[in-house]
Amino acid sequence: MALFMKPIKTLDDLFLHTLQDIYYAEQQITKALPQMIEKTHNPQLRQGFQSHLRETEHQITRLEQVFQAIGEPAKGTTCEAIDGIIKEAKSVVSDVDDEAVRDVALASSAQAVEHYEISRYGTLISLAHQLGRTQIIPHLQATLDEEKAADRKLTEISESHVNRQAA
Amino acid sequence: MALFMKPIKTLDDLFLHTLQDIYYAEQQITKALPQMIEKTHNPQLRQGFQSHLRETEHQITRLEQVFQAIGEPAKGTTCEAIDGIIKEAKSVVSDVDDEAVRDVALASSAQAVEHYEISRYGTLISLAHQLGRTQIIPHLQATLDEEKAADRKLTEISESHVNRQAA
Repeated sequence: MALFMKPIKTLDDLFLHTLQDIYYAEQQITKALPQMIEKTHNPQLRQGFQSHLRETEHQITRLEQVFQAIGEPAKGTTCEAIDGIIKEAKSVVSDVDDEAVRDVALASSAQAVEHYEISRYGTLISLAHQLGRTQIIPHLQATLDEEKAADRKLTEISESHVNRQAA
Repeated sequence: MALFMKPIKTLDDLFLHTLQDIYYAEQQITKALPQMIEKTHNPQLRQGFQSHLRETEHQITRLEQVFQAIGEPAKGTTCEAIDGIIKEAKSVVSDVDDEAVRDVALASSAQAVEHYEISRYGTLISLAHQLGRTQIIPHLQATLDEEKAADRKLTEISESHVNRQAA
């Protein structure tokens, strides 16, 4: 959390803080994905990352629409969770020389990122319901569905890829 | 990742690294949970955290059985992801004075932790399948099922609690 952030007194404040947290996180993900794409050997996994990068850019636009709907400026707040997840991903991936093993490490790291997002969008949707802000739920739900689909796809690619390598 | 860790050359190495990562993470969670319990107002949520603390201690024992099954000493490796997730949780929770809002923040932070674990146990199970280490899968699957159940329970408690407060 950033220093000098607005204090959290109400559920509305908690919603705004979580929105700023995931807005920052999505931006860090768009910075990290090109580096992951560069290190990916498997064409299907690389294509998956490329398509998820475009998806993430669209998710940022959706978040900006949510900020607008609640009358707040779109801005992020430092998210130590995503910083830690990305730092660990880079560290593990840089330690693997073998292309096939590195691809599995990349897919696994990406799934840790997806699960962080799944938990945050789940919280935002739950809070939006409780606050009666039903008009913004479709934006959040669309992204949550994409994150869950990305997670499932990463499992499939990772397993089929490694099985082929091992065969 | 710890400095001077064993280099990751094979899928077996990646499995061991991920096992050491989640072993460290589970230990950090057993340290963080008592502090979360202390800050929780809602009795149902507090009870949920207390029961998850006992569950986590048992999950550590299961991980030690997995280390034993693969002939490796049980030890952790610093996991920057869980460190970041816990640091952020403490920071957000300490910024909330209102008991009902803090309970929602606590439940949401705990769900970010659960999702990190869900992603790591998912990876371990996938790797164990690919490595033919089928005898350890039941240990990992039992914990994955518990983490998913804990995540669902947190959603239920959080929503029912806040709805009561708002009524």
